[in-house]
Amino acid sequence: MIPFDAERLQSVMRGQGVDVLLATTPHNVRYLSGGYYMPFFAHGTRFGDGQYMSIVAIPARDIHAAFYVGREDEPNHLEAFGPLWITDFHWITRGSALTVRGAERAAQRLRTQGYGGGAIGVELSFLPADAFQALRLALPEASFSDATPILGELRAVKAPAELERLREVHSRTAAAIRETLSAGHPDQTTRQLAEAVQRRIEGRGASFLYALTNVGPGLVRVPSSERWGRGRPLQIDAGARFEEYTSDIARMGSIGPAPARAREMFAACLAAQERVRGVVGAGVACRDVYRVGIEALRSAPWGDHGRFVAHGIGLVSHEPPEVTADSPRRLEAGMVLSIETEYRDPDVGHVKVEDTVVVTATACEGLGDVESDWSTASGV
Amino acid sequence: MIPFDAERLQSVMRGQGVDVLLATTPHNVRYLSGGYYMPFFAHGTRFGDGQYMSIVAIPARDIHAAFYVGREDEPNHLEAFGPLWITDFHWITRGSALTVRGAERAAQRLRTQGYGGGAIGVELSFLPADAFQALRLALPEASFSDATPILGELRAVKAPAELERLREVHSRTAAAIRETLSAGHPDQTTRQLAEAVQRRIEGRGASFLYALTNVGPGLVRVPSSERWGRGRPLQIDAGARFEEYTSDIARMGSIGPAPARAREMFAACLAAQERVRGVVGAGVACRDVYRVGIEALRSAPWGDHGRFVAHGIGLVSHEPPEVTADSPRRLEAGMVLSIETEYRDPDVGHVKVEDTVVVTATACEGLGDVESDWSTASGV
Repeated sequence: MIPFDAERLQSVMRGQGVDVLLATTPHNVRYLSGGYYMPFFAHGTRFGDGQYMSIVAIPARDIHAAFYVGREDEPNHLEAFGPLWITDFHWITRGSALTVRGAERAAQRLRTQGYGGGAIGVELSFLPADAFQALRLALPEASFSDATPILGELRAVKAPAELERLREVHSRTAAAIRETLSAGHPDQTTRQLAEAVQRRIEGRGASFLYALTNVGPGLVRVPSSERWGRGRPLQIDAGARFEEYTSDIARMGSIGPAPARAREMFAACLAAQERVRGVVGAGVACRDVYRVGIEALRSAPWGDHGRFVAHGIGLVSHEPPEVTADSPRRLEAGMVLSIETEYRDPDVGHVKVEDTVVVTATACEGLGDVESDWSTASGV
Repeated sequence: MIPFDAERLQSVMRGQGVDVLLATTPHNVRYLSGGYYMPFFAHGTRFGDGQYMSIVAIPARDIHAAFYVGREDEPNHLEAFGPLWITDFHWITRGSALTVRGAERAAQRLRTQGYGGGAIGVELSFLPADAFQALRLALPEASFSDATPILGELRAVKAPAELERLREVHSRTAAAIRETLSAGHPDQTTRQLAEAVQRRIEGRGASFLYALTNVGPGLVRVPSSERWGRGRPLQIDAGARFEEYTSDIARMGSIGPAPARAREMFAACLAAQERVRGVVGAGVACRDVYRVGIEALRSAPWGDHGRFVAHGIGLVSHEPPEVTADSPRRLEAGMVLSIETEYRDPDVGHVKVEDTVVVTATACEGLGDVESDWSTASGV
């Protein structure tokens, strides 16, 4: 069974005038295959004089003519994984220039399918230069365009299994940040705090991506040798991956009481989160989400320091839907938004709350949006 | 101070006729910068409608004219990291098309340096297609070639700090495999065994790359629902990363006694390892290493099933030096070899020992080559 919304893919491809989609990134190959990626290279593709690259090719007008190009030692791995919905496999031998030889093999198959002069969508910001050269050389009559927006649109509406992974990665990340804030002490540097977040994310079976830190006052948001100290507001903004799905969460805390203004800004961020959640739902225009968010933040006495951002998140952070002041686009059930509410006041610090919600038919639900209150640690 | 062998780089670039090296992969940017990579993207570059890409550009005839292209929010990260040997920085704004805009910025700088018509080496199997297009458009008189072999040659001789990381990642991987073999039970599937290796590698603070498994008899080497069982030889061949350096290790074990032939093949693999180590040293030709290895394996009664492979390993697995039957190339002190000795007999299984050594002036030393004896578990 096709593991994604085939009609959505066809509609987006038609809208972009693309005949065939060629996906080559691990996350999109896995998405389109239904969870399979060559295990030997699933955690890193560099090898020998280049890198491993597999290809999933999908023609818009006949999804079932999709094919897969991989390395000759994959059939045993595929058998252990279980049957794919794709049934047309092409294997290249081990050795050097896998990217080039894979592209050549795909080009050959595209020609036999009648797409030699077609409009081919490739992941232009990821496709290796040598593979692209090989494709263009082998398909001189074809035209190429960037398929990244197509894949972003296809992935914008999440399936239940994806939501479960997003819930997992967000709740694990939130717990890792919370534990780090609770266990902190004044002598700890922000670098040590970021490393502690990393260990706690990894200890929960997720992959660490990043941890940004700010200790107020001041707006620098980088782990460094600066110490947390007592009574200073600390922001930790961290990301992780779990089964390829990404989190993006910001939390605040202090050791002992924090300055009143920092706490007030924090309360205003939480209130803005609630206001935004109150409006998010299927059919709502993205610009309305933006307007509610920015107006909630601006309505505070320190509103000039406010900044509102909301972005899609899934296999990629900052994926569709795009939420801007001008976007008339309407939210759909199953879309996932990371909502960032923040104040950047150099005299106070960078106060931020970020959490993620899934759009439902009538409203929205938090995804692992736990441990979001201000953490006041004893520091002993 | 330049953190790599500048003369070696210049010599290799001259040999390949390359005027300027443009490195764009995280591992090579980090290698050339002396350990720096934009922390926000150090564990994954995909973001928004594309990916993050930084560039280290180094002209062969004036190494100190090297420059760096990154994103505008990097200076604070760089300050926290400490000074680089590179002092010419170029920042592009946040937003979309980082790969294209980074390439355009690099092209602009190359023109002002007089390399507009130069021979530019790029990482062709990694450079994003859109960045390559932008480079060629902005530098129509330049010629481009693949710099991957240049970087491979530069990295072939390891510095002491690199050897320390290789020792760490190999000993952690060996310990993770050993613990998994010792703790195994007959009902465990090879998939569960591979997952156990992953958890133990991660529990030791390294990143898991892969774990291949074979349970004899038969030659399939893929984690699956097959159970280990009693008295069956199990091979685990696993890789990990620690601070970007890669391991590649194979070990054997069984629950209860294994068939005599499997143990004999294992002993022959160990003996071949010793024979090869006896010959490895600075000045020795790679083909002589190969010859000693393959002859040692072939001299056994089941020699037809023998296979010998040795390959460089560091930031990349299977990097230079290349060890083949024909290679007259001579080993240098500081080169690192992963040595694979194995028999593939369908009636017995895939018996393999793989360990890593560093070439010294007179001989070689193991790097984390621990826990290599046959593991006989009780399975209870």
